[in-house]
This record gives sequence, C-alpha cells and structure tokens, in this order.
Amino acid sequence: MTNSGNIHKGWFSEICPMWEGIAVSLKVEKLLYSKKSRFQQIDLYQTRSHGRMLVLDGIIQLTEQDEFSYHEMMAHLPLLSHPNPEHVLVVGGGDGGVLREINRHDDVRFIDFCEIDQEVVNVSKQFLPSIACGFNDPRVTVHIRDGAAFVRECSGCYDVIIVDSSDPVGPGEILFKSQFYRDLKHALKPGGLIATQGENFFLHPDWVEKLMGVTRSLFPIYAYANIIVPTYTGGHIGICMGSLGPKLTAPARPVPQMLQSQLKYYSPEVHRAAFVLPYFAEKILKDKGV
Amino acid sequence: MTNSGNIHKGWFSEICPMWEGIAVSLKVEKLLYSKKSRFQQIDLYQTRSHGRMLVLDGIIQLTEQDEFSYHEMMAHLPLLSHPNPEHVLVVGGGDGGVLREINRHDDVRFIDFCEIDQEVVNVSKQFLPSIACGFNDPRVTVHIRDGAAFVRECSGCYDVIIVDSSDPVGPGEILFKSQFYRDLKHALKPGGLIATQGENFFLHPDWVEKLMGVTRSLFPIYAYANIIVPTYTGGHIGICMGSLGPKLTAPARPVPQMLQSQLKYYSPEVHRAAFVLPYFAEKILKDKGV
Repeated sequence: MTNSGNIHKGWFSEICPMWEGIAVSLKVEKLLYSKKSRFQQIDLYQTRSHGRMLVLDGIIQLTEQDEFSYHEMMAHLPLLSHPNPEHVLVVGGGDGGVLREINRHDDVRFIDFCEIDQEVVNVSKQFLPSIACGFNDPRVTVHIRDGAAFVRECSGCYDVIIVDSSDPVGPGEILFKSQFYRDLKHALKPGGLIATQGENFFLHPDWVEKLMGVTRSLFPIYAYANIIVPTYTGGHIGICMGSLGPKLTAPARPVPQMLQSQLKYYSPEVHRAAFVLPYFAEKILKDKGV
Repeated sequence: MTNSGNIHKGWFSEICPMWEGIAVSLKVEKLLYSKKSRFQQIDLYQTRSHGRMLVLDGIIQLTEQDEFSYHEMMAHLPLLSHPNPEHVLVVGGGDGGVLREINRHDDVRFIDFCEIDQEVVNVSKQFLPSIACGFNDPRVTVHIRDGAAFVRECSGCYDVIIVDSSDPVGPGEILFKSQFYRDLKHALKPGGLIATQGENFFLHPDWVEKLMGVTRSLFPIYAYANIIVPTYTGGHIGICMGSLGPKLTAPARPVPQMLQSQLKYYSPEVHRAAFVLPYFAEKILKDKGV
C-alpha cells in the first residue's frame, strides 16, 4: 500500500520540516489513489477511524470525519460577517468543501472558484463525494488556473474572498505574499472582506504574526480566529481576516434556522468565541502592533 | 533508548485503544527515566521540539512546551470562578503543575494535595523542576494515597476541588465514577465548586456526556470548558465543572494584574470563551438533557 516514506506498520505520520518534532499519525487501511500531478503529490487514503483522507505533498488536507470544522468556519465566519454577500470568490480548496458550505447560503448569487490543480478536483469528485458535492451548484464557476494571477486581474468584483490554501511551501507559497494580499484587497467590492487560511499560533507564531501584520497594514478592520481540527498537527488552525467595512468578530445578521440546522461546528456563539485567543497569542499580535 | 513498543525511528506515538486510529507522535531524543511503579509505567523523555515529556502507561501527560495551557486552565478557571477560594484540594496531578498555578493566588490559604503514586512526584521533582516547583509552597500539604478514599473522608472542607486525573483506565478509573462525584460534592464547603479533567468531545462525546450527566445530577450549576493542548491526541481537552453557588462561565472577580502577567493561556476573555463549544458538542449535551 505504502506510497509515502512516512508510513510504518499501517500508520501514516504527517512528518514535515514545517513542524519538526511533532506529527499527527493516522492508521490507514488502503491507499486509494496516489499520483504526482503537475504541481504536487496527491494521496488519498482510507483511514481506520477518520474516513477517507486527502494528503498533498505529505500534508493532511482533510479527513471525512472532521473536515466540517475547517470548511464550516472558513465559509460561515466571513459570509455571516458580511451583511449581504452576493459575489464570492474561493481561491484554492480543490476538494470543494468550502464551496459546499457557501452553497448553503441562499443570498449568495455567484461563486467564482479558482484552483491551480485540476487533479485535486478530479480526485475529490471521485473519492470524496460528500465534500466535492460543492461543485454541483449552478452558481459555481470553476477556473483552473493560478489563483494569484486570477486575483491580480480582478478589480472591485467580490463581497467576500476566501483563500483555502495549503501551507506556504509548494504551490501555495505565493498565497502568503503581501502582494497577493494587496491584490485581494483590490479585488473586493466596497465593504468587502477576506478570509485566509491562517496557520497555527502554537506551531508558527511567526507566520501568524506576519500574516496579521500584512492584513493590518491593508485593512481597517482585521481579526484572527481559531478552529479546532483534531487531524491537523497541533489540533487547531487559524483564519486571518481583513475587512473594508463589516466588523468581523460577531455575525452581521441572524443565522437562518435552516442554515444552522445543517451545521456541526459553527454557531453565532462559536463565531464570537473563535476570535478569543490564548493570552500569549493575543500578546504576540498586540506587542507587535498587530 | 526504546522502552515502549510505540517508538519507531526515534518517534514516540501515543497509540492507544482509547483513541483507535489516531495518535500524536513526538520525536524523542533520550529516555531519561523508565520504571514501572506500583501503579503504572512511568516514562520521561527528552523530545526534539517540546522539551521533556511525561508519559504514564503510554499516554502523554504533559510536555514542557505546552503544559501551561492545561495547568493554567485547570487551576484558574475554578479559582477565579470562586469569590474567595481559601481551602483547595487537588486530586492527582503528581507532576505539580496545577499546584504551581494555584500557588500564584495570594488568597488561597491552604492546599491539600492527594496523589496515589509517590513515584510520579519523585520523577517530576527530579526531571521537571519548572513544573514540580508547585510542591515548594508552604501552603501545600502532600498526601500520598488513593484520592477517592481521601475525598470520601472529607465533609465540608474545601472551597474548590480540582481533579487532575489521567484517563478512565488504570489508576484513574475510579475518578470517573458517579460515587466519586457524590463524594466530591460532600467534601465541598457551601458555595464550593469542582473542576475535573473532562476528556475530549471529538474523540469521546460519550464520556463527556456521561461526566456532564453525573455533574448535572449533583450540582445546581454546571458547565464544560475546552482547552487547546497541541500534544494531546486531538489537540484539545475539556474541563467538567460543577458548582454549589458561583456561576462558572465568567470570572467572579477581577484578575489581579500580578497574576495575569505570569500567565500564558488564561485571561478573563479566555475564561468566558472556553465554555463556548462547537455546535455539535453543545447539541450532544443539550439533546441528552445535560
């Protein structure tokens, strides 16, 4: 079965220089797909306890068992912070999970989706149908190309932009540059807002500080939220948010009952609490003027 | 170096039937201590990235790098929920970390500490001085004996009782029984409160539900808080709290500036936010009448 060097006795370990010395390990039963695309190594496993698992360049992107945490928060935090999000862009997230969550919003009229790697979309459609169902909505237009270039060409187009990137190595690297953040701002409509994958303040306080520093320099309103995702190393991941108008740390409007009934992680209370960080993390951001 | 079967190429993995299929792995450089005490296997490792690590029966109890999360919250959530905690009991927690945090409170006059395994105390004093310094305070009285029996003999003694147990297998098992919770209540002064290690709602919603069910049946006020601890499998752990008077979900009094300046995780905002759980976890507790 083994494709990766990080498997021992049926356990896959997310061993990576980005978080040297610590790794999440998952028991895997079957390697369902393994191929190097033009951009990255794509592996799809059946795990013992967490359903199927998508791994890119050795890094866990999601498991079926807990993907709802990340996808719900990446979609509903920004969408419910905006009073009326009609035009939405998603950069990255080729699995379709963020799209699936956006699709639950009746007020969204048009969703552009830009992913660099067609193969991630294909694999997800084949092996992760409960996630890739996000592509089935007629409001979604798929663009398979470089997200940074796509954003650079936009001007005043979107109410909300969500960047569901992998980590700042490999094809995702450009999505952590300050030029990309300037382009994101330029691509927003007045009163628009962005939400980007914000890494982990226990493992990478320096990255969080840098991302929030860039966001602060560009947006009058900014905030950093935290999400529990047990199968990410460290068990949690952040969302970096910047806004041209709406405040971010509470929902801008009531959550429709029909929407809430479909959710497992997000609630208005979770929205507010997600922005409260451990004291050391708050201090990192404050001491550095973020 | 290897003592445990869960080490491969210098990586220790917390493989355990309690969380089948998922494990945190840490690169270990040296096994500093390894011995079976009367109660359990005790291993003390030097890790690559997280300082020293205490492992009991193969389960990670703490690493020097992130122990502050758990110890701060286990101590300061209950102590700052109480208007005037003078008499405190700690059951378990032989490393001394919870004691260290309690010692920061000037208003606490007397701390009983009851741990079943003298060897855990000894190992911690020898290898984890920054944690076991909790034993140095003259207000602490150490009792090396069965915590359940100790509590059973108390009546109306304590303002706050903190149960820093291991998991409900091995010597910690009795600390998850409903009789023990009845004895805890009996050991409290009027207006007292308890805080117990509450497991993980992603991995063990059934245990959380059971613990909160028992707490609810005994205490007029109860709540469940969550803490991020990256080196625990799943990345987080809960605290189950029951109170005879004080509300729990906000500090009962201002946090002294001198105390706050010593902390890395707890703040009044973190206190409040810790009780906001993901929607599915809130729902588990509500649907079951908890």
